[in-house]
Amino acid sequence: MPDGLIDAFWAYENALVTNDLEALDAAFAPGETTLRGDAGGLLVGHDRISSFRGARGGAPIRTITSIHVRVLSNEYALIVSENEPRSGGRGLVTQLWARHADADGWVVESAQVAGAPAAMNTAVWRVLGNPLVASTDSDGGALAGETVAVKDLFDVQGFAVGAGIPEFLAEAEPAHSHAPAVAALLATGASVRGIAQTDEFAYSIAGKNVHYGTPPNVAVPGAIPGGSSSGPASAVALGHASIGLATDTAGSIRVPASYQGLWGLRTTHGAVDAGGLLPLAESFDTIGWLTRSPSVLRAAAASSLDGDAQQPVEPQFVISTELLFAADVAMQGAVVDAVGRLEADGLIGEVGVVDLGDTSGFFDAFRTVQAAEAWRRHGDWITAHPGVLAPDVASRFETASTVTAEAESSAREVLAAARTQLDDALAGRILLLPSTSSTAPSVGADPDEIDAARAATLAMTCVAGIGGYPALSVPLLEVDGAPAGLCLVGPRGTDLALIDIAAPFVR
Amino acid sequence: MPDGLIDAFWAYENALVTNDLEALDAAFAPGETTLRGDAGGLLVGHDRISSFRGARGGAPIRTITSIHVRVLSNEYALIVSENEPRSGGRGLVTQLWARHADADGWVVESAQVAGAPAAMNTAVWRVLGNPLVASTDSDGGALAGETVAVKDLFDVQGFAVGAGIPEFLAEAEPAHSHAPAVAALLATGASVRGIAQTDEFAYSIAGKNVHYGTPPNVAVPGAIPGGSSSGPASAVALGHASIGLATDTAGSIRVPASYQGLWGLRTTHGAVDAGGLLPLAESFDTIGWLTRSPSVLRAAAASSLDGDAQQPVEPQFVISTELLFAADVAMQGAVVDAVGRLEADGLIGEVGVVDLGDTSGFFDAFRTVQAAEAWRRHGDWITAHPGVLAPDVASRFETASTVTAEAESSAREVLAAARTQLDDALAGRILLLPSTSSTAPSVGADPDEIDAARAATLAMTCVAGIGGYPALSVPLLEVDGAPAGLCLVGPRGTDLALIDIAAPFVR
Repeated sequence: MPDGLIDAFWAYENALVTNDLEALDAAFAPGETTLRGDAGGLLVGHDRISSFRGARGGAPIRTITSIHVRVLSNEYALIVSENEPRSGGRGLVTQLWARHADADGWVVESAQVAGAPAAMNTAVWRVLGNPLVASTDSDGGALAGETVAVKDLFDVQGFAVGAGIPEFLAEAEPAHSHAPAVAALLATGASVRGIAQTDEFAYSIAGKNVHYGTPPNVAVPGAIPGGSSSGPASAVALGHASIGLATDTAGSIRVPASYQGLWGLRTTHGAVDAGGLLPLAESFDTIGWLTRSPSVLRAAAASSLDGDAQQPVEPQFVISTELLFAADVAMQGAVVDAVGRLEADGLIGEVGVVDLGDTSGFFDAFRTVQAAEAWRRHGDWITAHPGVLAPDVASRFETASTVTAEAESSAREVLAAARTQLDDALAGRILLLPSTSSTAPSVGADPDEIDAARAATLAMTCVAGIGGYPALSVPLLEVDGAPAGLCLVGPRGTDLALIDIAAPFVR
Repeated sequence: MPDGLIDAFWAYENALVTNDLEALDAAFAPGETTLRGDAGGLLVGHDRISSFRGARGGAPIRTITSIHVRVLSNEYALIVSENEPRSGGRGLVTQLWARHADADGWVVESAQVAGAPAAMNTAVWRVLGNPLVASTDSDGGALAGETVAVKDLFDVQGFAVGAGIPEFLAEAEPAHSHAPAVAALLATGASVRGIAQTDEFAYSIAGKNVHYGTPPNVAVPGAIPGGSSSGPASAVALGHASIGLATDTAGSIRVPASYQGLWGLRTTHGAVDAGGLLPLAESFDTIGWLTRSPSVLRAAAASSLDGDAQQPVEPQFVISTELLFAADVAMQGAVVDAVGRLEADGLIGEVGVVDLGDTSGFFDAFRTVQAAEAWRRHGDWITAHPGVLAPDVASRFETASTVTAEAESSAREVLAAARTQLDDALAGRILLLPSTSSTAPSVGADPDEIDAARAATLAMTCVAGIGGYPALSVPLLEVDGAPAGLCLVGPRGTDLALIDIAAPFVR
């Protein structure tokens, strides 16, 4: 056995249990090629590994139950070890150790870590079943075999709605029947896999939840998942369900779809029965779905949309340079590239440029009416439960509580005019824009960075909210290996037509 | 890049997807030190890896999304690769490749594989929640913070009982209230984590379920978990819950406790309210718990047992050589060793030998009455649903259907006499025996081997069934690295006293 190898192994194990970040950093080889992987994904490079550790806290207390050492040369050894966490289950770790002359001995160059898997990912799910609710269809409907993650805002018979807030859940009564959007999926062959997490009262687009934790972003390890439909989106990305039933008021479907590389449809306002849904801001609340494929998305959408009310749309596309410039430079480039490829491949005709006119007051008016409605809906409960919401969501509601009737009324006037202005400018064409202003920020990103991404994204997403337009996020963009959505905003009632047009865009 | 390395990587990946067992076997280095680990545990040696593959079937279709190669020497290279299963999520694999002159190129000497984790382990759980049912205690009861896996035979309000059979579940109505044993745990501070799987109608001690799959045996990778309380036992061993609420008719708590190294208590017959429980054979059905610690077991047992009816017991221990000889030779040795250690450590006094008299007819009589009652309970349903049960369980019920009234009646006479005979022989002392005749057989073991282990185990476990005695399985034995239980069978009403006596035995 090489000198110092086993000592280094035990020193590292000890540093893990005591969460000695300095020792852990030193135990991993410096440089850009050091690897550390676990169920959350593979981190490449010493610095990314360090920042992951800083965000995580210590490893659970565990006992090493076996060690298998394979000496490969004077410089390398592989150690495979099994462990037994005090909380049950078993863990497994494979480490490639290297003798570094400049690092005072042995360091880890590559590690794969498997902890004892939890019964369920409680950041993603609140309740799970096999199935939780069986399909009511027995004729091989279009969604036969598909599984649904229901955002915790919809009634599922026998279960209370929690809206991402344990205290709200504790006071809620079990639903006596399914929300129509749930029932429609069940009647089309899908079963409900479970009830998935949301940002508190769905009033955020980050996808963080202080009570249940942040669901993983499978596509970008260490990044926020996007919200508020974070649970359904992560469930679909993880392969835990094939359909996320969700809501989008100001981007809550489009943002997680974009951040995680999923298909996501925000429907025409009012086109889907919102019965059994806990509202946030009814002037803008819409129901929609997140999927990994356009065909499943179309079938899910068709289960709830009234076919007779759906409209065709001409495949005429326009870009608003003003909206595009709200995105970061890399995202602008990704959109331009993608549009160029679609044109070159003959998938779309030449894309025009649309002048939407003066849109400077749009976002403020949208935000004002949304806030007024959100406070009218949830203000009493929030007032009666001080200290329950996370600081960022609480402060958003705090601001919402100050909107005066006059401010709301004048904002509604702005919105009514804005809608006409948008209708006239778009003239039945499909607006192309990125679904988000950037790819997913990392969980540990500076709050200012996350806020800036949030403001820029909302300025773009509010266009569909104001127009009541359907908006489809297509997983077509990529920036530095991270996915993002190209968003198609169509005339009201063209939900299914948008999917049909965009389905060939990917692959 | 060394010659042939990347080709070998891709050839292996291709063999995985096509489940080319011969190519997979050849890709792993021969010998006893080859390693392959995943969430199910670490397999050591080429042959164990091969037999695992044979039992598993192919890997899911997936796309390799990144490959990180680290050449360590002329003979060794590490490859870390990420993959994207078609069904969603991400996978990660670390492989140590070695150039073997005699193996025509590169082979894997060690691999750690992480597939995309499922939303839930459906072999263990039917429904899961965070929690599924909140505690009804707010005073910091003895079980505060503990989580319960409820065997799918107990009523949980709002959920139907499935008894391990999807067709039975589909026809069952949601329960209007909790079974008293569930309510007692909730009132003592525990919450319900979920509803866990069972063998069909609990009529088996193997822990296999043809509909939902075989729960893992965390302590012995690749072995059967033991049943019929397989789901609660595996849930506790996995750390998914801290208490398994279960039943034991002929060993259904003791067997999985023994096979998985858990504490398990079968209570005195009739000592726990069996309301809201789907019976199997009411003359022998008992309620009990599986835990990782004696303190949690005691608090769980105390939640349901009537303290006033509980009795003390003298710590006088006896062994029946006849019962001990029913176990395999290795297990006999493990019991003798453990008893010797307990005596040497002063934890128990000198263990005597008890002559139970002629017990040759006991097991047949037990089995006959159990069968008659099981058929009376479930025969109509089984007759109305031909082909639903797995062949082994179906054939057991088939045999049960042939028990005549005369046979049952004479078996009951044998049992009444047997009970008196056992009471007299044991005379208030505690009988020590192994909880199972062997450690857990492997999932792929010859059916004859599993049947032999089953018959030998039932011959031992039926003593508590006949006497209505409490039986405590203590995770104290070990054979070749696999756990087994030392079973304490005490006089009726000494459930809690047995736990108090045995708690110091471990560690």
